[in-house]
Amino acid sequence: MGGSSAATVAELGEFGLIEHFKALAGQTDAVLLGPGDDAAVVAAHDGRVAISADVLVEGVHFKGEWAAPEDIGHRAAAATLADLAAMGATATALVVSLIGPAGMSAQWALSLAQGLSEEAALVGASVVGGDLSRGRQVVIAVSGIGDLAGRPPVTRSGARPGDVAALAGRQGWAAAGLAVLSRGFRSPRAIVEAYRRPLPPYAAGPAAALAGATAMIDVSDGLLADAGHVADASGVTIDFDPAALPVPAELEAAAAAFNVDPLTWVLAGGDDHALLATFPPGTALPEGFAAVGRVEERGAGQAGVLVGGQRYTGDTGHEHFR
Amino acid sequence: MGGSSAATVAELGEFGLIEHFKALAGQTDAVLLGPGDDAAVVAAHDGRVAISADVLVEGVHFKGEWAAPEDIGHRAAAATLADLAAMGATATALVVSLIGPAGMSAQWALSLAQGLSEEAALVGASVVGGDLSRGRQVVIAVSGIGDLAGRPPVTRSGARPGDVAALAGRQGWAAAGLAVLSRGFRSPRAIVEAYRRPLPPYAAGPAAALAGATAMIDVSDGLLADAGHVADASGVTIDFDPAALPVPAELEAAAAAFNVDPLTWVLAGGDDHALLATFPPGTALPEGFAAVGRVEERGAGQAGVLVGGQRYTGDTGHEHFR
Repeated sequence: MGGSSAATVAELGEFGLIEHFKALAGQTDAVLLGPGDDAAVVAAHDGRVAISADVLVEGVHFKGEWAAPEDIGHRAAAATLADLAAMGATATALVVSLIGPAGMSAQWALSLAQGLSEEAALVGASVVGGDLSRGRQVVIAVSGIGDLAGRPPVTRSGARPGDVAALAGRQGWAAAGLAVLSRGFRSPRAIVEAYRRPLPPYAAGPAAALAGATAMIDVSDGLLADAGHVADASGVTIDFDPAALPVPAELEAAAAAFNVDPLTWVLAGGDDHALLATFPPGTALPEGFAAVGRVEERGAGQAGVLVGGQRYTGDTGHEHFR
Repeated sequence: MGGSSAATVAELGEFGLIEHFKALAGQTDAVLLGPGDDAAVVAAHDGRVAISADVLVEGVHFKGEWAAPEDIGHRAAAATLADLAAMGATATALVVSLIGPAGMSAQWALSLAQGLSEEAALVGASVVGGDLSRGRQVVIAVSGIGDLAGRPPVTRSGARPGDVAALAGRQGWAAAGLAVLSRGFRSPRAIVEAYRRPLPPYAAGPAAALAGATAMIDVSDGLLADAGHVADASGVTIDFDPAALPVPAELEAAAAAFNVDPLTWVLAGGDDHALLATFPPGTALPEGFAAVGRVEERGAGQAGVLVGGQRYTGDTGHEHFR
């Protein structure tokens, strides 16, 4: 990289930066034409692609002082990779648009790109292109495509009364990490790291599809909020069993220190990218999933989501425009 | 839409806005699963997709006072659709992330979405998903996928000495329109409209591929700058024939009024999304293309782009980070 480490993106220039990005991004066999042209070309083996988009905005989804650029890259990629996993797909490629001030350091941008590439590589996907622009605020817009391997996509609308609701991945950790950082702390480290770099259970998505999942969603807005999306799309009620949603000891400890209810993190926290899926009764749950509730018929006027048969009255998630 | 026309996006909420977007976006047969889930699913008939991304930033790529939201939507979609056309592909689907202040009017956002959908519909593509977030500045990040219909992609690297360089679409109009608007004028209308809403020659992309184009690029940064990308990727020199680059009368008139050289708009203006392609000598150029120069061997130290055998010494394009 030579002298680029001290340079700003403006000094290095759009095309200089793109050359560095190209060198960073390893390309898999699915990439038939990699970065550097007007478009990349990616294999779509079964004649379809799943496609999704997510955006991370500085000050809304991340703060530069709370996370290193590599971590922000990991998080930005994770959001889209988890969306694809939630359809039962395996991501094959990402395209990334990066907007930021002209004075942004080239090293920062390249570290971000490194994080994006590393997270994509976890599922065998490549960063195959993107765009760069200056702007007042750092914005990272990621789109991705994925391979359904011949299976139908697992939508939000297929949950049926009697199905088991099951969760894969950590839930509540990122919200706890955000709470820790918001109060000016940098530890416990495991919790802060969970906020900085989620660990979505990517393999559980295709595994759930193979096991016959009737519905699935990436838990990015909060467990209750995202369960509500499944419930509304499927016309059912999902009743969580509070005993099946144990609060990890690490979260209990942090919550006690801050005098908050850690169950709120588990029920309403976003950004861990757990997968919530429903399975026909009697299904042997795939590795990584644990039963957390049951799908029921939804009576007139009944809530889409219950906890232990009751409406939950706390915070149920966030919308990014509010 | 009821009362939403006076509402802000914050009042309508992310999910309310998404419901409106879904209603706006017509879906084609290629869309196997439309907006509203974690990802959409789109047909990729030949087992591959071309994929590209572009971003428009308020104050960098557009000013709200110079263009209606529909126009901005058309321009945002056009950038990605033209990238796909430049590979010889026909776009099938777009995903769009919209970032803006919480006080942005919902009607503005929906008009933008309308423009995006209308421009996509010109090539038979659909807006199949996206993301929404608040942010200080309006940012529109568009990614798109396209169908190569079994053909190899037309890259930037295949131009060979002896090839004919040919251009399809208008070139210089958007730069002239920007110059008019920048000086506080709102006419001539045809020029201002060209800036607000480009008319990329989408069909010329696949037609060029069918005709055997050896290289192709979407002219978004300027004719000389983008020709330079082809020349560098192909290891050749492209020599433009100035007599083959006539300046339209409308641009002559506007340039005379401002005392500028209109050839600068033609050679260095961006954002019209013309297509520059190279064809083997003797190729019957597809409809819409006109020969504008010749591809030559590139001697050591020789420039990649010449105009009438000479280096052009004016402005040759812009980089968005500078």
